[in-house]
Amino acid sequence: MSSVRCHVSMSLDGFVAGPDQSAQNPVGVGGKRLYPWVFASKAWHAHQGREGGERTVDCEVIEEVLDGVGSYIMGRHMFGGGEGPWDESWRGWWGEEPAFRAPVFVLTHHPREPLVLRGTTFTFVTGGVTAALEQAQRAAGGQAVSIAGGAATMRQFLAAGLLDELYVHLVPVVLGAGERLLLDVGDPTLLPVKVVHSPRATHVKYRVVR
Amino acid sequence: MSSVRCHVSMSLDGFVAGPDQSAQNPVGVGGKRLYPWVFASKAWHAHQGREGGERTVDCEVIEEVLDGVGSYIMGRHMFGGGEGPWDESWRGWWGEEPAFRAPVFVLTHHPREPLVLRGTTFTFVTGGVTAALEQAQRAAGGQAVSIAGGAATMRQFLAAGLLDELYVHLVPVVLGAGERLLLDVGDPTLLPVKVVHSPRATHVKYRVVR
Repeated sequence: MSSVRCHVSMSLDGFVAGPDQSAQNPVGVGGKRLYPWVFASKAWHAHQGREGGERTVDCEVIEEVLDGVGSYIMGRHMFGGGEGPWDESWRGWWGEEPAFRAPVFVLTHHPREPLVLRGTTFTFVTGGVTAALEQAQRAAGGQAVSIAGGAATMRQFLAAGLLDELYVHLVPVVLGAGERLLLDVGDPTLLPVKVVHSPRATHVKYRVVR
Repeated sequence: MSSVRCHVSMSLDGFVAGPDQSAQNPVGVGGKRLYPWVFASKAWHAHQGREGGERTVDCEVIEEVLDGVGSYIMGRHMFGGGEGPWDESWRGWWGEEPAFRAPVFVLTHHPREPLVLRGTTFTFVTGGVTAALEQAQRAAGGQAVSIAGGAATMRQFLAAGLLDELYVHLVPVVLGAGERLLLDVGDPTLLPVKVVHSPRATHVKYRVVR
């Protein structure tokens, strides 16, 4: 069975997005302060098809979280396109050739035909996290399923006991407000299995004991 | 000038004590889950004058936080003895020979004569954090001042911009409720300067840029 993993940047006070999230500002006020370790890295530049960036331990972490992923699951908010029934002209935030390059399953309450873009097909799942996970695991071809976000979707998988691995990128900022990852997720048993660090983040990989 | 430092065990969801703290249970419900890395260690056993315990990286962290401390500051709740004017028969939680072995300054609204125990003198300071820090720095003899706790006192020093170093022992548990360290502390600039880890905790030392 595919392992189910999730990685997330978190402030030292536990926020994974700032307050006042919106379509215009999906990471909330101040939320961009969680990502300098990503945006400075050579690996991120390369993933976006660009030159430049720094070669640091943060790079290795980015390569690690991108490696071996057979499919993704994301929430409706992350895919975008507003609330309610679909306006099918909405094709996601990522252009005509999204960098996922793997099947993506979108949790939604509203049915929609699959959206086939270059290298990435978005499939819309109305059966909840368990149905999405079954489809994502079949599509993953033995590789991992990655829970891409947002925070509410990550929380659902953690609370339902469906995660095998939670990789926290602990960023040295205090946001003071915003959206928490670890709220109403029960009492998961976490084993730290890897820690690497740079000045921009301390990366702690936890195995979630099922 | 003495550096001012603080170290604290924190759950992955940001709590430094469980809910329902009381004189009978000062760490709150579930709060003991923050301390296995301490209680299992040889260094803690030795500090308590006992044999046994494990020799791990957690030991080295305990030795590091005990080393080079010239004086301590703590809040009234940590010292104990209830609220309001002092019942002078209360001599702290730590017996007649407390393991501090250094001057301790207790923040309080109620004056009291110094309490001299074997190796440790408790001095009661009614002038607030700045007055306590001045006295503690004079007493430290060039060594560090350690903010011993509780969480409210740590928060006061951090919010007032008086800390030089915050050493977080990030423990792989989700408490779900309790007292947070990083609430209403403003937006301190934190630089991670050291990370070590064991299965029981990830220790991240932050320099607080003044």
